[in-house]
Amino acid sequence: VTVWGIVVAGGRGARFGAPKQFHPLGPTRRNLVDHSVTTAAAVCDRVVVVLPDDRRWDGLPVAAAVTGGESRSDSVRAGLAAVGDDADVVVVHDAARPLASSDLFRAVVDAVRAGADGAVPALALADTVKRVDGDRVVETVTREALVAVQTPQAFRADVLRRAHARRADATDDAALVEATGGTVVVVPGERANLKVTTRADLDIVAALLDGPPGTAP
Amino acid sequence: VTVWGIVVAGGRGARFGAPKQFHPLGPTRRNLVDHSVTTAAAVCDRVVVVLPDDRRWDGLPVAAAVTGGESRSDSVRAGLAAVGDDADVVVVHDAARPLASSDLFRAVVDAVRAGADGAVPALALADTVKRVDGDRVVETVTREALVAVQTPQAFRADVLRRAHARRADATDDAALVEATGGTVVVVPGERANLKVTTRADLDIVAALLDGPPGTAP
Repeated sequence: VTVWGIVVAGGRGARFGAPKQFHPLGPTRRNLVDHSVTTAAAVCDRVVVVLPDDRRWDGLPVAAAVTGGESRSDSVRAGLAAVGDDADVVVVHDAARPLASSDLFRAVVDAVRAGADGAVPALALADTVKRVDGDRVVETVTREALVAVQTPQAFRADVLRRAHARRADATDDAALVEATGGTVVVVPGERANLKVTTRADLDIVAALLDGPPGTAP
Repeated sequence: VTVWGIVVAGGRGARFGAPKQFHPLGPTRRNLVDHSVTTAAAVCDRVVVVLPDDRRWDGLPVAAAVTGGESRSDSVRAGLAAVGDDADVVVVHDAARPLASSDLFRAVVDAVRAGADGAVPALALADTVKRVDGDRVVETVTREALVAVQTPQAFRADVLRRAHARRADATDDAALVEATGGTVVVVPGERANLKVTTRADLDIVAALLDGPPGTAP
């Protein structure tokens, strides 16, 4: 089984400011993208990194470094175009989650090898979820059976290519696969696998990378 | 306006193991409850702490230390019974969120002083949310208008007492107030205000308390 990884660090920074993405973090001073590519490379046979259009890749050797698109899904499609025909499984990972472990990459890949079309890490929702209208709470949502999903997300390569052929946008790749009728399963996510979307998140991730012995990652 | 705070550290550890709750953290070696009581005391005129039945309070001076109940809502009711008749606003806070700031306490109190029946901190959902059946994804939930809510949650004292008089259970107090028709508004939550529900969460919070200068809190 040949596994390709796509690390999505791209787009034009509309979702994620480029400076944050390339901000050095932790004792090793590696940035979010370096962390994600390193972890992906530990599990995937080949890795494609998707970058903003004003960035060149100067990190670890990768199979390809391509320029992202307007939306996150466009960026994944740009990466997917650089994935070889030999790929059996494709793992898509957001560089904004630098603390995902190699075990988590293995877990989603294994779930696809075991027969699922796709596999995503998921956690029970820790917080109460409410629906709002402006700043007014409308209702408290029943959160039984709801999970928060993360990346890395693994897919059968043919299924992922077919799902992206529709050129739709979604907040994750699993949603596109679900829309084509594919079976997506969940594996246990990781608490420390936070998504960096704000400066405060970056501070949190930096603290975790600098954390005391025994601390994630 | 007289503000009382209830720090919920109680129940019998079904939701939250007592050892974790009283585990010393960070450079000051204070536990989760101490952190939460200290922050509550900075904003509230009087503080009630709700403890497991095998614990006595030996931290900061508080107005009352009471024993919690079976459910979280039972524990809040135990605390509410110790809140004075002079209370205009009651703030309920989970000790499992030791990184909530005093500014956040002030923000929810101010929103109630400005006319709401209740006010809760809320964040946009960072992760994609899916509905699952076992380990199989059933659907991706539209997360527009959905928020993850935190504590501290502030309420008009009379409204909160009336909501709890029904003796119902819910994952937060705002849900009980919503059920009685009260208006609950949201204020911006804090990314670092994580809820400690697992050992991994405790490690994350410990790393944040030990974090580099400039890091929350």
